[in-house]
Amino acid sequence: MNSFGIKFKFSTFGESHGKALGCIVDGVPAGLKIDEAFIQSELDRRKPGGKYATKRKEADKVEILSGVFEGKATGTPIAMVIYNTNQKSKDYSNIKDLFRPGHADYTYFHKYGIRDYRGGGRSSARETAARVAAGAIAKLMLKELGIEVRSGVLSIDDVEAKEKDFEFAKNSEIYFLDKTKDEEAKQVVDKARNEHDSVGGSVLVSANGVPVGLGEPLYYKLDGVLADAMMGINAVKAVEIGEGCLSSKLKGSQNNDQIAKEGFLTNHSGGILGGISNGDEIVLKVYFKPTPSIFKPLKTIDINGDEVELKLEGRHDPCVAIRGSVVAEAMMALVLADMVLLNMGSTIEGVKKYYN
Amino acid sequence: MNSFGIKFKFSTFGESHGKALGCIVDGVPAGLKIDEAFIQSELDRRKPGGKYATKRKEADKVEILSGVFEGKATGTPIAMVIYNTNQKSKDYSNIKDLFRPGHADYTYFHKYGIRDYRGGGRSSARETAARVAAGAIAKLMLKELGIEVRSGVLSIDDVEAKEKDFEFAKNSEIYFLDKTKDEEAKQVVDKARNEHDSVGGSVLVSANGVPVGLGEPLYYKLDGVLADAMMGINAVKAVEIGEGCLSSKLKGSQNNDQIAKEGFLTNHSGGILGGISNGDEIVLKVYFKPTPSIFKPLKTIDINGDEVELKLEGRHDPCVAIRGSVVAEAMMALVLADMVLLNMGSTIEGVKKYYN
Amino acid sequence: MNSFGIKFKFSTFGESHGKALGCIVDGVPAGLKIDEAFIQSELDRRKPGGKYATKRKEADKVEILSGVFEGKATGTPIAMVIYNTNQKSKDYSNIKDLFRPGHADYTYFHKYGIRDYRGGGRSSARETAARVAAGAIAKLMLKELGIEVRSGVLSIDDVEAKEKDFEFAKNSEIYFLDKTKDEEAKQVVDKARNEHDSVGGSVLVSANGVPVGLGEPLYYKLDGVLADAMMGINAVKAVEIGEGCLSSKLKGSQNNDQIAKEGFLTNHSGGILGGISNGDEIVLKVYFKPTPSIFKPLKTIDINGDEVELKLEGRHDPCVAIRGSVVAEAMMALVLADMVLLNMGSTIEGVKKYYN
Amino acid sequence: MNSFGIKFKFSTFGESHGKALGCIVDGVPAGLKIDEAFIQSELDRRKPGGKYATKRKEADKVEILSGVFEGKATGTPIAMVIYNTNQKSKDYSNIKDLFRPGHADYTYFHKYGIRDYRGGGRSSARETAARVAAGAIAKLMLKELGIEVRSGVLSIDDVEAKEKDFEFAKNSEIYFLDKTKDEEAKQVVDKARNEHDSVGGSVLVSANGVPVGLGEPLYYKLDGVLADAMMGINAVKAVEIGEGCLSSKLKGSQNNDQIAKEGFLTNHSGGILGGISNGDEIVLKVYFKPTPSIFKPLKTIDINGDEVELKLEGRHDPCVAIRGSVVAEAMMALVLADMVLLNMGSTIEGVKKYYN
Repeated sequence: MNSFGIKFKFSTFGESHGKALGCIVDGVPAGLKIDEAFIQSELDRRKPGGKYATKRKEADKVEILSGVFEGKATGTPIAMVIYNTNQKSKDYSNIKDLFRPGHADYTYFHKYGIRDYRGGGRSSARETAARVAAGAIAKLMLKELGIEVRSGVLSIDDVEAKEKDFEFAKNSEIYFLDKTKDEEAKQVVDKARNEHDSVGGSVLVSANGVPVGLGEPLYYKLDGVLADAMMGINAVKAVEIGEGCLSSKLKGSQNNDQIAKEGFLTNHSGGILGGISNGDEIVLKVYFKPTPSIFKPLKTIDINGDEVELKLEGRHDPCVAIRGSVVAEAMMALVLADMVLLNMGSTIEGVKKYYN
Repeated sequence: MNSFGIKFKFSTFGESHGKALGCIVDGVPAGLKIDEAFIQSELDRRKPGGKYATKRKEADKVEILSGVFEGKATGTPIAMVIYNTNQKSKDYSNIKDLFRPGHADYTYFHKYGIRDYRGGGRSSARETAARVAAGAIAKLMLKELGIEVRSGVLSIDDVEAKEKDFEFAKNSEIYFLDKTKDEEAKQVVDKARNEHDSVGGSVLVSANGVPVGLGEPLYYKLDGVLADAMMGINAVKAVEIGEGCLSSKLKGSQNNDQIAKEGFLTNHSGGILGGISNGDEIVLKVYFKPTPSIFKPLKTIDINGDEVELKLEGRHDPCVAIRGSVVAEAMMALVLADMVLLNMGSTIEGVKKYYN
Repeated sequence: MNSFGIKFKFSTFGESHGKALGCIVDGVPAGLKIDEAFIQSELDRRKPGGKYATKRKEADKVEILSGVFEGKATGTPIAMVIYNTNQKSKDYSNIKDLFRPGHADYTYFHKYGIRDYRGGGRSSARETAARVAAGAIAKLMLKELGIEVRSGVLSIDDVEAKEKDFEFAKNSEIYFLDKTKDEEAKQVVDKARNEHDSVGGSVLVSANGVPVGLGEPLYYKLDGVLADAMMGINAVKAVEIGEGCLSSKLKGSQNNDQIAKEGFLTNHSGGILGGISNGDEIVLKVYFKPTPSIFKPLKTIDINGDEVELKLEGRHDPCVAIRGSVVAEAMMALVLADMVLLNMGSTIEGVKKYYN
Repeated sequence: MNSFGIKFKFSTFGESHGKALGCIVDGVPAGLKIDEAFIQSELDRRKPGGKYATKRKEADKVEILSGVFEGKATGTPIAMVIYNTNQKSKDYSNIKDLFRPGHADYTYFHKYGIRDYRGGGRSSARETAARVAAGAIAKLMLKELGIEVRSGVLSIDDVEAKEKDFEFAKNSEIYFLDKTKDEEAKQVVDKARNEHDSVGGSVLVSANGVPVGLGEPLYYKLDGVLADAMMGINAVKAVEIGEGCLSSKLKGSQNNDQIAKEGFLTNHSGGILGGISNGDEIVLKVYFKPTPSIFKPLKTIDINGDEVELKLEGRHDPCVAIRGSVVAEAMMALVLADMVLLNMGSTIEGVKKYYN
């Protein structure tokens, strides 16, 4: 269960403090130009080490092991590996037998009967590097069809972006969407860190240029699969599409997107109707809880069930939503790439055109 | 793509105004007692015709065609069929060539090149009867393990339940969770209908008795699959787990669920950590948009792209969240049943125990 | 696990002596003309009742419940049902607690802990009617692309066809490929029946017009999936592609199909290289064991483990290979239909062509 | 489509002359002891370089990148990588634009529009190293349940083993099952090589200790999936189970395995009835065509369609069945491991036992 997608499918492996992590991307159409520098640049956006991120230093240098020949995808699986270089397992030796509140320690231990205490093992957000690498390939494919996926941070704690400026977000140290609030949002992050605490945040993910017709009813709907993709990112606790929660407080006459010759007059739907893209911008909001790893003492138990006080050390992001935005963007690209391929064959005319 | 689940899997078929709809439920453990009366009673909760629902009259009488012998599941696929009896296709003859705003007409037509205009065809919420039938079998299985899934309406438009009384909700005509607000909520529905409009709403879904360890990391997580299951229900636009959106405004020190001998001290997580159940109550909130079918005139285009005014007739729910709560409950049961089976084999000790 | 295929996928249900059997066919391209008479004619080829088949009388009348509108596939699942009309469960009452040698009674009982003794339940070859119905739709799709699948009986016991005349086979009562041996083969079947015994046989399945490129390496290869499809048919014990077993006794210089401008000079490969179709005729041989249901007494045990003598009654085919040929043909059509759809998206040029 | 299995699943990557090949094994039960030396020893059995194999020198040294902690599986994906060290791409420069008869060159080029001419790329049997590594882990798991998988070469060209001595086969340089014919079989291989030709062969694969009940009817049957697994191995053209082809020439009274208290009196079925294991030895025969790479001149065409004579160079096995036996053994182990996990949950009693 470490794979995602049906035709454009990726499988990941690796733990926070193991030798390496990586992925196999399967179903990449042959002939696609694989721009390694672009893949690396996407990883660089997610990699740890910035002022507002964990202090762990990882170059996250990606190496392609297969599936590419003379710069092009061959149609065979593209394996990518990223070696861990800065793991410090001893940071975790004092919590070896404790369950960190808010973490997956407790559930992994009970499910698997084994405790890989080193940085959370597989449940660490470090795994998302593999998603970003796979997502970069998805983006290269989508670009060929004129589809662009973007993201940015919409809120951090109670600082909310009013403007949605994806260009600004790209260069913001915290990927914030509103330049007038960027500084304030940074201060919130700093303050939380200084208080040995953490903050939550939310992220906007958008796709433009999506053709009408992507999404497979009724149980591989575009909205359903996007919700899975987003909710499956570490620390995400809510997903909205279009008006999202607010739509439950609207009347039908307000929420319906009326249609004119030139297209939909509004986009309350967030670009998806009946689980299928309608050609409009796809708009998602994704909510991240505050990083569970904080340095304030917390009540917990150990693997014997005895109560203890947890005093955490190590290196952690004060706000996972920031780097999480890059992951959410990658996941949307991966979902769309899969939907693009799955949609081929929806009509017998399309099948005949393809084979003639 | 009309199947859901991996080991406990169901596949549905049927259109709003076709001959019949139904499903195949595959992977039901042999020996499970199949209580047909219970399945019918679940369908009765969802069926149309009540005061706050569409006026279409359907008995939604389920017939089991296979997979059950002498009252027990045999381990082979259980097929169930529900014949449509009250379809009135002529209700739709005047909108044959129009795209109804907020509906999937537009996207299905563009994806498939075909317009089954009769009541929305496959995209109609009528299909959810099949989910409820399948969900009833899932519930029968979960009950054997002490797992109970419940639901209720949390809000309709701006009327919000404060109390969460699942027992009251069961008997409320609108499945509302708070008896002190039940009447007010009904009035909101009535008012919307009288104004030829519709209202949105939200639903709470809960599961108790879930063992620790359900959910398959990293790409078949319990929260991810639940999000897919919920977002894939007609008209749903947002899903929250535990604190949901609000968690993005909390500090780590507030949001972390600390642990004592007797268990988690709080349940901000909604019973899921790292995509795996932690033994606590699983809590989801699901947001439904207002029914797109309203009787106010709306701007739209026809299949030739010409602008026209839509004047809808027919029979529609003024608030889809009400019957939607039953569907959301069924979907959670289906997800949990699948996760129960998938989890078997997580440890080599468990495998050996099973085979010895 | 009652589904087959990935994009063109069918799921079956139903037991030999239950109410009905049927299938859902998912992934049929919208717009495909669904010729019901053709589907019925395919079922008629497989249906019981002929001189060389079981005496059970079933009209095998198929009813389409969904997925077709105005004679065309809508892109939604096509459900088909066949009601059983001539089940005689009492034929089986005397073997209720016995395991019939050569049958799945023993394994189903041990796997599921339940005995549906009525005619073998789900393991009966009666289920293959659903495959033939699904296969008929696959054939309708393949026909649009110029692909034709054919079959015939190659041998019965030690009577072997020298000629491979598919046209003759169509009209032979035993689907035999060689008109000069047809009578002899029939006599072998008659003789076995008169002796209360049964005979085995083999079947040739062929596809013409298959484009180069079908089959998904490395674990959904065309040859691998065909082998699964054939070996999964009741009573099949061996599958050969091209030269099959004989290739193991050839030299490379004999077995290699050399290539000229006009194509391959020979077809030892059976039309598949590296798991992918090479444009030549696809040729499979499928071997059926003799029907296990015979009227000679056999040693067996009952569900308590006590030894007993089995004296079978009921109605059975003296040679399952005969009607098995129709099933093998359907299965090949189903595999090819799936491979046609899966292959779409193999190249980025193909993807761009489809979306432009 | 580079994955195999459902619960015990592996995905492979890598080309003959790329940087590396490897696999991710997913679904390994946590707590299983991972004996790296055993995995390496299995790879050593398959690796090239012996007297009767290709002269390519590869240590096939496996490195585990994830999923194992303190010698035990953690339940997370186990990634293994084998770096290529002895690729000589220039061996292939003179056939860069030619299609080698009997090879997948032609079909890959037409499917993907790209020619990775270096040693066949992904279609090379070199990929099977990854299967053997994954199969070794499957074997470690099966051993915990008392299941043993073995293999040996049954025939090379027209030299056939009479005895089936798996212990002898283990130490034979050609894995031959009959020590009285071992020398003769070697001479056949030598002769073919000296004549610049190649020979075919067949392989016996067996499993003992398999519990009754493995295999998921009706479309993930044990025999069907084994047939897929075997037919999908490079150069395999036929698969027989139990009596195989011969069963088509037997009477029911001969072929039925009668049953006594102590079990089945014969094993014509090869241990599988109705697609489910019956507790007896599972017996498969797998037929390999002669290696297509021979040094005799062959007629072919180039990518422009012009006729040319192919004069092959490079390093090739004169008989792929030899090392193929190790691959077939690995594939059977992989299938059984998957079936062991899938079978859990067949009965509600089993489910309750697991969770209590």
